[in-house]
Amino acid sequence: MEIPDKVVNRLTMYHFILEDIRDDEEYISSTKFAALLGIDNSQVRKDLKYIDNQGKCRVGYEVKQLKRKIEEYLGFKQTKNAFIVGAGNFGTALAKYDGFKDYGLNIAAMFDKDVKKIGTIINGKEVFDISKVGSLASKQGVEIAILTVPRAYAQSVANYLAGAGIKYIWNFTTCVLDLPNDVKVWNENLIGSFLQFTNKDKEN
Amino acid sequence: MEIPDKVVNRLTMYHFILEDIRDDEEYISSTKFAALLGIDNSQVRKDLKYIDNQGKCRVGYEVKQLKRKIEEYLGFKQTKNAFIVGAGNFGTALAKYDGFKDYGLNIAAMFDKDVKKIGTIINGKEVFDISKVGSLASKQGVEIAILTVPRAYAQSVANYLAGAGIKYIWNFTTCVLDLPNDVKVWNENLIGSFLQFTNKDKEN
Repeated sequence: MEIPDKVVNRLTMYHFILEDIRDDEEYISSTKFAALLGIDNSQVRKDLKYIDNQGKCRVGYEVKQLKRKIEEYLGFKQTKNAFIVGAGNFGTALAKYDGFKDYGLNIAAMFDKDVKKIGTIINGKEVFDISKVGSLASKQGVEIAILTVPRAYAQSVANYLAGAGIKYIWNFTTCVLDLPNDVKVWNENLIGSFLQFTNKDKEN
Repeated sequence: MEIPDKVVNRLTMYHFILEDIRDDEEYISSTKFAALLGIDNSQVRKDLKYIDNQGKCRVGYEVKQLKRKIEEYLGFKQTKNAFIVGAGNFGTALAKYDGFKDYGLNIAAMFDKDVKKIGTIINGKEVFDISKVGSLASKQGVEIAILTVPRAYAQSVANYLAGAGIKYIWNFTTCVLDLPNDVKVWNENLIGSFLQFTNKDKEN
């Protein structure tokens, strides 16, 4: 079943909330989710129907079961390996963030072209010369690259990644990439995000 | 006029594209935007009507004019000051990212509770003791905080920020914050973003 992006986003937020529930609370109501996220009750119930979890009348959703269903549905346990390309401030911060692992994202290696960075280890992840992307990608079966190079290099590095067998690019740069159709790009547009937030009063 | 979040997001992407246009190209077509972003032509034209820019038949949109209109509409020149709360890996990476300034976001100061960090300067921004948030916020008229503390501290720090006069929290943690209604929260859900991206093939 095709699940809309916004629902995937909210399901992860429900999971964050479930993570913080005290151990002695067995049930959670849709009202609680709704209040914490500033959305409608009916939206929560609709979202949770996607993962076939209907909740009990007047009792709510069983915490542990709901958590497990979200994990299964979104594939938290099916670890996906990814490379970080660009070992600058942002790439390094992402490499040092251990939270990704709980949600199925493993950083297998990092790449840079700066000889001072190549060979260093950042949070257990080795930084390789960018020219090694292709061989390591095929050896480790990695198809996902997290692109954190400076904007000016983004397009040329992305071209190189596409040629090296990378199929998914999570783009943290502000360069809109022009790539062959078989490479999927997801733009993490932090600036757009900030502007959405500050251009109007909005709870999310 | 109320403008949908997705449109704000795409307008910034159009602006990124316009930034990369060669100087000798006077016009850009909706088709070019659409192809680069993997969306429909008609979507581009609809979006650009929000900012009252209709383009010329068979010629397209005037690059400089369109750029200026997006800048005016989204307020890139009306700088908003913000604090970064949490001078860890992620907070530091955001502080070092100079690109924000071009889009109207100025990091006025940083805060942490670690005495080893307090008093240091990161990319020209001083790190203050977290207890100084209230006085600096009122002195500098800052209402926006970028929250990059570890998850375990997120709720208590957010409570403190709310009490110190912060009205907008851009939340980079995976904690869903429970705050008074007059504090607006924008959740930057990177995990949700990754899962949206990898759970299905999608261009954006």
